[in-house]
Amino acid sequence: IIGKHAGFATITNASTPVFEPLDTFPRRHIGPDESDIQKMCDSVGVSSLDELVQKTVPASISIQNQTKLGPGVPETEVLERLKHIASKNKVFRSYIGMGYTNTLTPKVILRNIMENPGWYTQYTPYQPEISQGRLESLLNFQTMVCDFTGLPVANASLLDEGTAAGEAMMMCFAAGKRRKTIFFVDQACHPQTIACVKTRAEGFGIQVVVGDYEKYDFAANKGKVMGVLIQYPTTDGRVLDYESFVKKAHDNGAMVTCATDLLALALLKPPGEFGADIAFGNSQRFGVPLGYGGPHAAFFAVKEELKRNMPGRLIGVSKDVNGNPAYRLALQTREQHIRREKATSNICTAQALLANMAAMYAVYHGPEGIKQIAQRIHNLTAVFAEGVKKLGHTVKTDNFFDTVTVELKYDAEELVLAAAEAGINVRQVDARSIAVTLDESVSKEDLYDLLRVFATASFEESYRAGSRKQYFVPMPILDSIAQELGITTATPAQNFPANLTRTSAYLTHPVFNSYHSETEMLRYISHLQSKDLSLAEAMIPLGSCTMKLNATTEMIPVTWPEFANIHPFVPLDQASGYRIMLQELEYALSEVTGFDQISLQPNSGAQGEYTGLRVIKAYLQSQGQQNRDVCLIPVSAHGTNPASAAMAGFQVVTVKCEENGNLDLVDLRAKAEKHKDRLAATMITYPSTYGVFEETIKEACRIVHEFGGQVYMDGANLNAQLGLCKPAEIGADVCHLNLHKTFCIPHGGGGPGMGPIGVKSHLAPFLPGHPVVKTSGELAIGPVSAAPWGSASILPISWAYLKMMGDEGVKQATKVALLNANYMLKRLEKHYKVLYTNDNGLCAHEFIIDCRPFDGSAHIQAIDIAKRLHDYGFHSPTMSFPVANTLMIEPTESESKAELDRFCDAMIQIRQEIRAVEEGRQPRDNNVLTNAPHPVEHLLTEKWDRPYSREEAAYPMPGLRKKKFWPSVGRVDDTHGDRNLICSCPPIEAYEQSAEAGI
Amino acid sequence: IIGKHAGFATITNASTPVFEPLDTFPRRHIGPDESDIQKMCDSVGVSSLDELVQKTVPASISIQNQTKLGPGVPETEVLERLKHIASKNKVFRSYIGMGYTNTLTPKVILRNIMENPGWYTQYTPYQPEISQGRLESLLNFQTMVCDFTGLPVANASLLDEGTAAGEAMMMCFAAGKRRKTIFFVDQACHPQTIACVKTRAEGFGIQVVVGDYEKYDFAANKGKVMGVLIQYPTTDGRVLDYESFVKKAHDNGAMVTCATDLLALALLKPPGEFGADIAFGNSQRFGVPLGYGGPHAAFFAVKEELKRNMPGRLIGVSKDVNGNPAYRLALQTREQHIRREKATSNICTAQALLANMAAMYAVYHGPEGIKQIAQRIHNLTAVFAEGVKKLGHTVKTDNFFDTVTVELKYDAEELVLAAAEAGINVRQVDARSIAVTLDESVSKEDLYDLLRVFATASFEESYRAGSRKQYFVPMPILDSIAQELGITTATPAQNFPANLTRTSAYLTHPVFNSYHSETEMLRYISHLQSKDLSLAEAMIPLGSCTMKLNATTEMIPVTWPEFANIHPFVPLDQASGYRIMLQELEYALSEVTGFDQISLQPNSGAQGEYTGLRVIKAYLQSQGQQNRDVCLIPVSAHGTNPASAAMAGFQVVTVKCEENGNLDLVDLRAKAEKHKDRLAATMITYPSTYGVFEETIKEACRIVHEFGGQVYMDGANLNAQLGLCKPAEIGADVCHLNLHKTFCIPHGGGGPGMGPIGVKSHLAPFLPGHPVVKTSGELAIGPVSAAPWGSASILPISWAYLKMMGDEGVKQATKVALLNANYMLKRLEKHYKVLYTNDNGLCAHEFIIDCRPFDGSAHIQAIDIAKRLHDYGFHSPTMSFPVANTLMIEPTESESKAELDRFCDAMIQIRQEIRAVEEGRQPRDNNVLTNAPHPVEHLLTEKWDRPYSREEAAYPMPGLRKKKFWPSVGRVDDTHGDRNLICSCPPIEAYEQSAEAGI
Ligand SMILES: Cc1ncc(COP(=O)(O)O)c(C=O)c1O
Ligand SMILES: Cc1ncc(COP(=O)(O)O)c(C=O)c1O
Ligand SMILES: O=C([O-])O
Repeated sequence: IIGKHAGFATITNASTPVFEPLDTFPRRHIGPDESDIQKMCDSVGVSSLDELVQKTVPASISIQNQTKLGPGVPETEVLERLKHIASKNKVFRSYIGMGYTNTLTPKVILRNIMENPGWYTQYTPYQPEISQGRLESLLNFQTMVCDFTGLPVANASLLDEGTAAGEAMMMCFAAGKRRKTIFFVDQACHPQTIACVKTRAEGFGIQVVVGDYEKYDFAANKGKVMGVLIQYPTTDGRVLDYESFVKKAHDNGAMVTCATDLLALALLKPPGEFGADIAFGNSQRFGVPLGYGGPHAAFFAVKEELKRNMPGRLIGVSKDVNGNPAYRLALQTREQHIRREKATSNICTAQALLANMAAMYAVYHGPEGIKQIAQRIHNLTAVFAEGVKKLGHTVKTDNFFDTVTVELKYDAEELVLAAAEAGINVRQVDARSIAVTLDESVSKEDLYDLLRVFATASFEESYRAGSRKQYFVPMPILDSIAQELGITTATPAQNFPANLTRTSAYLTHPVFNSYHSETEMLRYISHLQSKDLSLAEAMIPLGSCTMKLNATTEMIPVTWPEFANIHPFVPLDQASGYRIMLQELEYALSEVTGFDQISLQPNSGAQGEYTGLRVIKAYLQSQGQQNRDVCLIPVSAHGTNPASAAMAGFQVVTVKCEENGNLDLVDLRAKAEKHKDRLAATMITYPSTYGVFEETIKEACRIVHEFGGQVYMDGANLNAQLGLCKPAEIGADVCHLNLHKTFCIPHGGGGPGMGPIGVKSHLAPFLPGHPVVKTSGELAIGPVSAAPWGSASILPISWAYLKMMGDEGVKQATKVALLNANYMLKRLEKHYKVLYTNDNGLCAHEFIIDCRPFDGSAHIQAIDIAKRLHDYGFHSPTMSFPVANTLMIEPTESESKAELDRFCDAMIQIRQEIRAVEEGRQPRDNNVLTNAPHPVEHLLTEKWDRPYSREEAAYPMPGLRKKKFWPSVGRVDDTHGDRNLICSCPPIEAYEQSAEAGI
Repeated sequence: IIGKHAGFATITNASTPVFEPLDTFPRRHIGPDESDIQKMCDSVGVSSLDELVQKTVPASISIQNQTKLGPGVPETEVLERLKHIASKNKVFRSYIGMGYTNTLTPKVILRNIMENPGWYTQYTPYQPEISQGRLESLLNFQTMVCDFTGLPVANASLLDEGTAAGEAMMMCFAAGKRRKTIFFVDQACHPQTIACVKTRAEGFGIQVVVGDYEKYDFAANKGKVMGVLIQYPTTDGRVLDYESFVKKAHDNGAMVTCATDLLALALLKPPGEFGADIAFGNSQRFGVPLGYGGPHAAFFAVKEELKRNMPGRLIGVSKDVNGNPAYRLALQTREQHIRREKATSNICTAQALLANMAAMYAVYHGPEGIKQIAQRIHNLTAVFAEGVKKLGHTVKTDNFFDTVTVELKYDAEELVLAAAEAGINVRQVDARSIAVTLDESVSKEDLYDLLRVFATASFEESYRAGSRKQYFVPMPILDSIAQELGITTATPAQNFPANLTRTSAYLTHPVFNSYHSETEMLRYISHLQSKDLSLAEAMIPLGSCTMKLNATTEMIPVTWPEFANIHPFVPLDQASGYRIMLQELEYALSEVTGFDQISLQPNSGAQGEYTGLRVIKAYLQSQGQQNRDVCLIPVSAHGTNPASAAMAGFQVVTVKCEENGNLDLVDLRAKAEKHKDRLAATMITYPSTYGVFEETIKEACRIVHEFGGQVYMDGANLNAQLGLCKPAEIGADVCHLNLHKTFCIPHGGGGPGMGPIGVKSHLAPFLPGHPVVKTSGELAIGPVSAAPWGSASILPISWAYLKMMGDEGVKQATKVALLNANYMLKRLEKHYKVLYTNDNGLCAHEFIIDCRPFDGSAHIQAIDIAKRLHDYGFHSPTMSFPVANTLMIEPTESESKAELDRFCDAMIQIRQEIRAVEEGRQPRDNNVLTNAPHPVEHLLTEKWDRPYSREEAAYPMPGLRKKKFWPSVGRVDDTHGDRNLICSCPPIEAYEQSAEAGI
């Protein structure tokens, strides 16, 4: 199906090598050079990379059809090609709205956050001591969301508005103890929101009723309605007073969830004040480019009572070991958002980078600035509405903020055509109606151009006028309209009910009132950045996360206007550049995985899982096998797997692992057989979450297929496979691809990500559709994201990566990923117990160090080693996944031998430090490990009564004297934070106290 | 003359304010907001900004003709406009060469250095303890230059190749004790180099003889030839063996200076090995965009004996107070490059940012990579030369590296036309010859296209062929040519004499052999950056330097391809965008200064001075007043003033200042009268270098004019004038404008800068010309820069600044600059003695704090306060200029009240610390000031025997616990460094020792 887009595999310079360009990419992407590779092979005890592969990857699975990506394209050329492709996008002036508008990204934010590896290469802030910068910024995001929505608790972003609506519904479902089954959705919500809610409802058997909120009959469904969803302002622009409806819903035991718009809330009474329990929406218009649909950060806020059940990551305020305030991810221990098979949400990677941008937008503009922006948009909208009336059309929205729906004198299609002629997109609502949404980028000239589109005479009139050119009726003068309406800066427009006027303050915290000059803003961004360890400082060896190079050449196109400034719902012919890029990427992804078709819609790995399982379910249904509802999942699986399975409506049955970490085939067969009539699928991570290529993988797939199940492969570990084997050839029917791992999308400090799925042809017809833009056929499941191609604007990153690497580069990267891991394994196994290697004593692309022995020997835990690593300037490996009290190390191919050695040296030195405790030379409860990390401030105290010196704490290796990344706080107290949950910026009083103290 | 480009003053949105865009710039550029301004006025004791102006700026000089810049254009709009203008540039494929080629800027360097405020906003590293990052990078630059040129000492960049040639000549002049007067220049040097040398020679009465080096008769000029200049390879591409010529020159007592090309030297025997005393050139092709001529870093290397006389800044290796190695600017105390009236050079601001880029390019590619690049270019050039022969033309250059000159079968103009048709620029050498220079960006396809231009049949042939289309003769196949020539990667081309093959190694230092993956490169850049205090961290209150905001919107266009990728010598019609921008900028600069014409050629303030004085001289000559050669300069003048005067051939006569810092008018009149027949000019800085608007400025101008002199105004302090007064109205005839101060070009850690001059109409005909691109008329002086419009690609910064500020913004900025300075003055004068205020007790935009009293009272010097400020996270103010043992503070308008307060708090706290010494509570030779700065490492030593605590050293103010920028080394020992001058990276052994120690 995809094979035809063979355009990806163009052949360049297949001629005399002297002509070949030198700006080749694989040697820049891959850390070790040829000579290091040889040295490392020697250490590992293999003669070559190929021997290493032979000893790690089972022959039985090795690749059958070599990938056909073509040779790697050099860096300069790849950008030229992509620019050429991008230039096929037509950047029209869009007034489509529907949750996406143009925005003016402050350039200081664009350059210093979105285009800055110090911000975009960070991981999710699981290690708070080296992440205080973005934790503070995400807390600003939460505070801003609370302020605007009028609700007390907000999380640090969700994937998009559509999935946020789904999450809201699931909270209602949980609150109704899963016994209430109806969710009422007002018809004036965005169509893609309604569609996403419906998709989400299916797995849980929830009945979504769409209708007119004013007419909904709660009484008829007494006790069955878990909640309602309203939108404020509505998709067609109306600002409605929901107060009595909210009361009715509450009286009938239904929770109220409200989709809303932060900017509108600068002028309007917030949902929290009219009784909504949950409010959510898209924060995109706070300075985040449209990007043809994403990535953007959805916001999500709830009432106090709901805070402990909120999906997604929640930043909280706690204190460090010295009692200083410190931020951190709250409620982690309670599995805040992923509760395995009991889950109602599986969200993991979210949209941290974009949440940070939106937060910084609020920091830069401040309350006055935001209000001015909102008011100006409203003023212009009022002038527009009046102008349209003067032109003889009918405005259907009496009350509005930024969107008006116009009933035309003639067919809407005529106007859409005239608009396109003028390079303008409007939204066609029905045969006679057009909606228009204004935004902060609209100039007076733009407004004139837009209004002039509505001055287009009908075809009929033009014909009668006998004009060769299109005919226009006389235009009103904008200034006169404003004057007539009495709109001035002092007496602004107000085209919404007086009782819906916002009276409460927002953004009152000093952080939103201090950094309004560019200089101050830059310093604030730069100060926060300096507290966070990113890939620009050191390796981040997080197992299962694949923190590899996010190359600048890959990143540059993301902010090109041709990709950044396109609304997701423009006519397809305006997005030809995107379509070429997307199709080429689909081709490349299917080449490396062996799948027949790809869906680029899911916005994260977890979303990919969910999508894949839903596709399996739809397929089974189409085969008349709707009874199949059991999903076999190994105990070792990532928490998102069972959560996704539960969300897709499957019943999770756990499969054991052998002692050595391998899947227990006997148990698998037994469970498969036991549930043979109900077996729907299995979810297998490969190489396993233990970092080993299991020999038995094909057999496992065979067993599941034998009993009528489908094989879902979790592709988080694909970095070990590319070019060496293919999920589809191994036996998977579907697999997600975390583009933010193997395919170089930067992790952004906790998102964005992308989790496309690949499927075999029998599943292809069921790939997700979209209500606004056609992405799939008749049999498609509903959308899993608000935008048709998820976060389209970051897909050039993966496109460029695969283009620049080519077949050889991709394969070499995988080999070196294996080598790097095994090199570290060999160095470290002399000092630590390594769990789970294969028969040759080798791992795949990652391996696990067992810290449990130290509990007995020295009362040292994995967390102590993790925190001590901060003192060595490193991020910790993945802690306690998949096995409690272990560290999982994944170096990726991008790390050089020098960096691997630096990290191994640190680990070995730490082993000595543990030994000192084991041997009683240091006390068990007061040593460099238990007290780690050591920020400067703690080391400079007058009194020093530790059993080790300041220098031993700070400089355990001499290189650290020259180059050291410092943690900014001491060990953070999680228990305190969870007990006293504070999830917005500390109150001004606290701040003022500090200020008085001169802080 | 300029007034016609009134396009600058376009009027936007002069309508109802509700329509006005909100992304206005002045409030982002100016630190304090309205409410802060009022508070600060209160503190200063004025009711309003206007009253402040009235009390600081003498009424006699206040502006007569209000500026006509128009209203400020919002940020988004200004970028749209500039994009529109830029799009008028045609980016052709250029093979023009002449010292400028295309280059592939590694994107990791582009994004993380050139587009990173952490690198571009830094000041010259005068404070080494907070500048170790770029000092290391500049040392890398020097090392790389030494390696390639084969000479032992190199400086940290000069302004461009043309002025470097001038500097080389001046070193010969000095070496010849100013007694030898002839400088021989080979005719095969670039024409702009020859022209710049000639310009430079005039001021010193040096005779430049241009001829064929093979024929030059030293004997005929025995004892008179100070030096020679050769180019290697020559401008037309020949690689010549100069060995015997060098010997002859040396035998005749002449020094040998050699213009060269770093990339060529990767293959060719370096100048140092064939005896050159000095080698210099342009490092642009090491990854620095063409930018229509600049900015680029010229390199300059000399023999050991000459190192102490080298112009420009020299980075050296010394040690800090703890004995750790530390980099710093060497030989500062000996007035390394500016010796006032004895000077042969006036260079001050250089090209640090671009030198850093070039150095990083070498770090990224390493010796092998650079060699491959050079060899590939050479291979392609060889194929090209052969192809051209096959097409029936004659190649005139037997030996070449990257440039060949071709004698055509027909008129060169025909081919130039055909090339342009194909979007290609070549260099026309004479009526029948074309030269072509290849570079690393040339692909096989490009080579084909280029060769095809040479396959154009002559007009005659085409006519005879009767073809309607242009006719082409059959093309040879590139692969076949390569095969025929036997060029392969293993047996590369070598079209230069075997004895000129490079045999010596280069880039052997580990720094050039460690960071070849993008990840390693990024971390190296980021590590160096983390050691340097830039405007992204804190204010840099350097008096006389105007470290204001360099806004992102101003910076973005610099790296647009439409501005970045244009060769300086393209036909003017390809640079229409540039011309519009340049003319609009000239208009705006003449509006704010009152001058009739502007020259955008000088690349720095000092160059502007020199140019202005040379223009004055040419004018006087035109009036038959060549006898006028005295230049009156106040004692307080910046060192560049007398240096420039000397270089322009003037005799410097010093004018006294009164005790209060004002110019001594009595002395001025006396000196003017005394020299009335010889009085050529005076140079006055205004407001004075003491930071005061002298009431008598007009009178001073009148006196000089009365005695027949011209008034040169040093515009370094223009930030106090804009919108309030105009140099031309005050009485200046000429004035330079440091665009890197008042007009927002970032300082780049020591450049780039730009120093255009404005002149009154009588001087306009004499503004500098250019030998390749016409910039001026018949009477023009020679060029002062290699490129016609200096560093054209950074001019959009100043353009955008003036556009966005508009008349009101510019004026407001100046007022706030005055307010900020006076606010600080009022806070600090309670604690420090402030030198030189006006009668109202007020300063202009900067003021001086006197540290001399502390010498007696506590044995504390200005430098101790400066270094102690580092402990508070601040850059020091300007030290000991214009008065020894003082600190001059200039906050600029961009600093917020909060930042000013933070700085004042620090200064006040330091005053307390001084008091502790004064009162004997702390010893005189061992206190927080004398021991400052305190890097972390020094604070963590086991033993602490200082009379103050670690915390007192590190956290003298509580805010520092939350946010502190740390110095990376202790106080640097200048004397040690100057005595043991090491100006390239420490040898590998030293490095290996460290490595063994695990550093
Ligand atoms: C094995 C595995 N599966 C699934 C996921 C979830 O992916 P995402 O965070 O993109 O939702 C992860 C994330 O770390 C993972 O490691
Ligand atoms: C008063 C004064 N004149 C001239 C100059 C020289 O300018 P530039 O460094 O651009 O050559 C300076 C530089 O600081 C200065 O302060
Ligand atoms: O470079 C300066 O002298 O300011």
